[in-house]
Amino acid sequence: MKKRIIGKIALIGVALTLILPGTSIANSELMKLMDNPDNWAIWGGDYAGTRYSKLDQINSKNVGDLKVAWTFSTGVLRGHEGGPLVVGDMLYIMTPFPNKVFAISLNDQTIVWRYEPKQNPEETIPVMCCDTVARGLAYADGKIFMQQADTHLVALNAKTGKMIWRIKNGDPKKGSTNTNAPVVIKDKVLTGISGGEFGVQGFLAAYNIKDGSLAWKAFSVGPDAQTLIDPVKTTHLGKPVGRNSGTNTWKGDQWKIGGGTTWGWYTYDPKLNLVYYGTGNPSTWNPVVRPGDNRWSMTIFARDLDTGKAKWVYQMTPHDEWDYDGINEMILADIKVKGKNRKVLVHFDRNGFGYTLDRVTGELLVAQKYDPAVNWATHVDMKTGRPQVVAKYSTHQGGEDTNTKNVCPAALGSKDQQPAAFSPKTGLFYVPTNHVCMDYEPFEVEYVAGQPYVGATLSMFPAGRVTGDGTTHLGNFIAWDADKGKIVWSLPERFSVWSGALATAGDIVFYGTLEGYLKAVDAKTGKELYKFKTPSGIIGNVNTWKHKGKQYIGVLSGIGGWAGIGMAAGLTADTDGLGAVGAYKALDQYTQLGGVLTVFVLP
Amino acid sequence: MKKRIIGKIALIGVALTLILPGTSIANSELMKLMDNPDNWAIWGGDYAGTRYSKLDQINSKNVGDLKVAWTFSTGVLRGHEGGPLVVGDMLYIMTPFPNKVFAISLNDQTIVWRYEPKQNPEETIPVMCCDTVARGLAYADGKIFMQQADTHLVALNAKTGKMIWRIKNGDPKKGSTNTNAPVVIKDKVLTGISGGEFGVQGFLAAYNIKDGSLAWKAFSVGPDAQTLIDPVKTTHLGKPVGRNSGTNTWKGDQWKIGGGTTWGWYTYDPKLNLVYYGTGNPSTWNPVVRPGDNRWSMTIFARDLDTGKAKWVYQMTPHDEWDYDGINEMILADIKVKGKNRKVLVHFDRNGFGYTLDRVTGELLVAQKYDPAVNWATHVDMKTGRPQVVAKYSTHQGGEDTNTKNVCPAALGSKDQQPAAFSPKTGLFYVPTNHVCMDYEPFEVEYVAGQPYVGATLSMFPAGRVTGDGTTHLGNFIAWDADKGKIVWSLPERFSVWSGALATAGDIVFYGTLEGYLKAVDAKTGKELYKFKTPSGIIGNVNTWKHKGKQYIGVLSGIGGWAGIGMAAGLTADTDGLGAVGAYKALDQYTQLGGVLTVFVLP
Repeated sequence: MKKRIIGKIALIGVALTLILPGTSIANSELMKLMDNPDNWAIWGGDYAGTRYSKLDQINSKNVGDLKVAWTFSTGVLRGHEGGPLVVGDMLYIMTPFPNKVFAISLNDQTIVWRYEPKQNPEETIPVMCCDTVARGLAYADGKIFMQQADTHLVALNAKTGKMIWRIKNGDPKKGSTNTNAPVVIKDKVLTGISGGEFGVQGFLAAYNIKDGSLAWKAFSVGPDAQTLIDPVKTTHLGKPVGRNSGTNTWKGDQWKIGGGTTWGWYTYDPKLNLVYYGTGNPSTWNPVVRPGDNRWSMTIFARDLDTGKAKWVYQMTPHDEWDYDGINEMILADIKVKGKNRKVLVHFDRNGFGYTLDRVTGELLVAQKYDPAVNWATHVDMKTGRPQVVAKYSTHQGGEDTNTKNVCPAALGSKDQQPAAFSPKTGLFYVPTNHVCMDYEPFEVEYVAGQPYVGATLSMFPAGRVTGDGTTHLGNFIAWDADKGKIVWSLPERFSVWSGALATAGDIVFYGTLEGYLKAVDAKTGKELYKFKTPSGIIGNVNTWKHKGKQYIGVLSGIGGWAGIGMAAGLTADTDGLGAVGAYKALDQYTQLGGVLTVFVLP
Repeated sequence: MKKRIIGKIALIGVALTLILPGTSIANSELMKLMDNPDNWAIWGGDYAGTRYSKLDQINSKNVGDLKVAWTFSTGVLRGHEGGPLVVGDMLYIMTPFPNKVFAISLNDQTIVWRYEPKQNPEETIPVMCCDTVARGLAYADGKIFMQQADTHLVALNAKTGKMIWRIKNGDPKKGSTNTNAPVVIKDKVLTGISGGEFGVQGFLAAYNIKDGSLAWKAFSVGPDAQTLIDPVKTTHLGKPVGRNSGTNTWKGDQWKIGGGTTWGWYTYDPKLNLVYYGTGNPSTWNPVVRPGDNRWSMTIFARDLDTGKAKWVYQMTPHDEWDYDGINEMILADIKVKGKNRKVLVHFDRNGFGYTLDRVTGELLVAQKYDPAVNWATHVDMKTGRPQVVAKYSTHQGGEDTNTKNVCPAALGSKDQQPAAFSPKTGLFYVPTNHVCMDYEPFEVEYVAGQPYVGATLSMFPAGRVTGDGTTHLGNFIAWDADKGKIVWSLPERFSVWSGALATAGDIVFYGTLEGYLKAVDAKTGKELYKFKTPSGIIGNVNTWKHKGKQYIGVLSGIGGWAGIGMAAGLTADTDGLGAVGAYKALDQYTQLGGVLTVFVLP
């Protein structure tokens, strides 16, 4: 396998040179689209993943008057993550499995085209660990890029919906699926892979947007030739990582089924030409069978866009014992840290720490808890970068079949995939968070390709049960100071805040709740200025755009995702491997399934 | 069978006397609720089925400012007919199969309770001819009455959702299902039966609300003992109908599988103590096998509430050759006809004629086409009450396997179940209509219990193809003068108007469109004053209520029903027996499936 991949990379190296002229064209078109806030041309609004819009027609003064402009049912019931793309007069959305794509005219709300791939539900759905979600589309070069659950990456003509090319990125029979939104940079479309609960060896892949041919593929774990890690040039906290760092902290060949999947969001710094993303949990959830740091699972990667080569890495949770996937988005911002202007990357990890790193060098600047309930580690040692694990919350130390109680956060983390926002106006990060703890019990599990390879049961409950503060809420929406590593304000929410945030130049921040409310709050104070009950619980991202002089806010509702898996999959009890969704049972008093786009405007 | 039914009726006669005290209580509570326009306590707003509200906070001056107050996804995809009931602080809705019921608090939009019956989809769904719709609930005596698709009639505690009783009203294995909303009058809950395309012998049944025991059951066709028709006292256009009128216009025993189902709406005149409803098509759609008038299919019935006995009948379409079911609602109004005050019943039949009858005597006062395209009959002879059939549009005369072309209206009628509204302020009826014609070809079919017994294929297309006026629209929303029998104004709509209308004291009329627009128009002129695109196509009824001083408008969207069956059932081509939905194929450019309640309010 190793050999074949090296061969491919070499081959692609040649191909790249040939198509370089096309590169800059696609890139500059998308850059222009992203620069114009009338569009929402990429999942994060920009390559930096700030989810910030310069639009200010809707602002803190008038947002209370907001009203629904129009609505659109997708005809699909399960969890709707991601959000709408807007390019010119067209709005594009994608549904969970079966991954329908709709292109809707903003002029008259008609469906200009729709695309529904043929996928085998029996093959794909059982391999999707935490609802059959999809996180949306990418646009570039007149194409819509869509990542199907069955791992097919598809390029569609953005005007007609006609398929231009389609490639297969993985094999569902071996546990691989996809839920992530692809991202286009220059002439490449980047995509990852899901399947950490099936022992999939994670990777980030870059395909040429022209024809879907592979440009490079960089595994998270494995030998250097697979990880595209240079033993000398690639650094971890400033030091070279050394030879085969992706295998030598693993027992035997466990890395081959070692996870480190890449189902989150990808950001990019055009000046540094670096792509940023995080890797998921080491497989299996049972830490006993995989002693060692399990590098480079749970790791932030900075990779060169053109070659895929890793510039630096930072492992947040060495030897994960809690399923604290590191896949959450890396937000790129230029802020002052300790009085100095810094090009930083800010990341709110599942493990409950909010990290600020120098994105040029990978230097760790700040690592602080963004939920006070976090107890599995006392702090992060700033020299070694290692979290200082509290012994009684180590799920490894008791061995298999020992139930470790009251670990905070729960496996779904202090934050999961729901992306945060950053406002350069306030300098604050706005973070949708979970406030949930768990009991965690590892058990023995055999790897069988394509079968669940989970290796732990767990049950989740409100953090208040551990902190003893008498609260029962499951989430907070917080404003975060990434310089000081401190919460500025925090809004308790009944359930996890599983919706992507939006900050705007109107000094407001939007987010959705699992009950189905779209909320707008004052960016400085957190004061609630507006709320509206959409048809179903919101796990989608709030996006904004302008059309014919009017600013719109759009969000998909449609309960589901990990927090909503109980409802989405019709579960009636806690379920092994899914992480025991009992804490969210009360959701069905507030909302029911159903995917609907709701679009807001001022009167 | 005859004997057993007589026995039951006699028995019930005794039971009735015993429970009379309870009678008036239930009745007066519901009457009070209906009298208070803050509630919407019955499908039609009142027993008369006017779908008129005295509320005028939202009116022709301010309706343009209407905005969405809140929304609620039902989690069910197929066609959502019917509308919300509102009783006090509670709102009740029901979904298509699997017939979920939600009780929602108007104070905070939480789900106070929900009820989901266990039904066998394999048994029930294939027997539902035209989408798995349900037309809503009834309230009385602290109970919610719900008619399941599998024919179970259920009484639920309105506060808790707990089942109080459940009875079986038919047998899906023999082709019986239910789609209608029950209606409670005095101590009885009335319900009908669906299955005209399976040879079901239609009936109206009255069950005691206390325990679900049968009070009476009156068949549409059959011997007098089954139809509860008195040969002497029951009249047809003023004349006694004579002995066994429900069998003697049938060939042999065909009446036993003769249809006349009763899946529409039921209205009631408390002073006359008469229930009004219509019966459906004679089975099978192939008219060749059932010569004769096929009485009392296609008939308006006036029955005594207490006994079920028929006071008068009027057959609109003797010997149906087009599937012009007579089940559409009978709206009761007191209006001037030809200068005289009359207690009338106004009915817009599938056959394209708008009828005005004296509801006391059953005298036929007016019968005029409410769609100019109607061509199957020149007019209704006012003496005999018989439509004068145009020979070339008789589908019988050519015999089996002859395709009769360009018949107007199509089988789904100039109007189907979508109920009209009547404003006593304007004296006008507001009618959602179809503007569709068809080719119709009968074929030989054998009756097998529980198997489709359709006996004709047909294809439908815009009426403009027959009238040659160059139009392609499939519907009109019209205002109708039931005295003159004339259209006052007519608004063309791209697709059939399949939504129940609402008229209010605010001089406005609401209706929904299959594209998904809720529209408000001026009651006098038809001028469009407001429109809003709900998540999916609207086949539900627009209702209104007041809560904490504010008037609300509510409507279920969720494309489906006969017009939307192509989308709802995922059909890709015209389908035998369903009536060829090809004309509605373009719907998928405008909307997708998904049940959502949208509630509107003034800012």
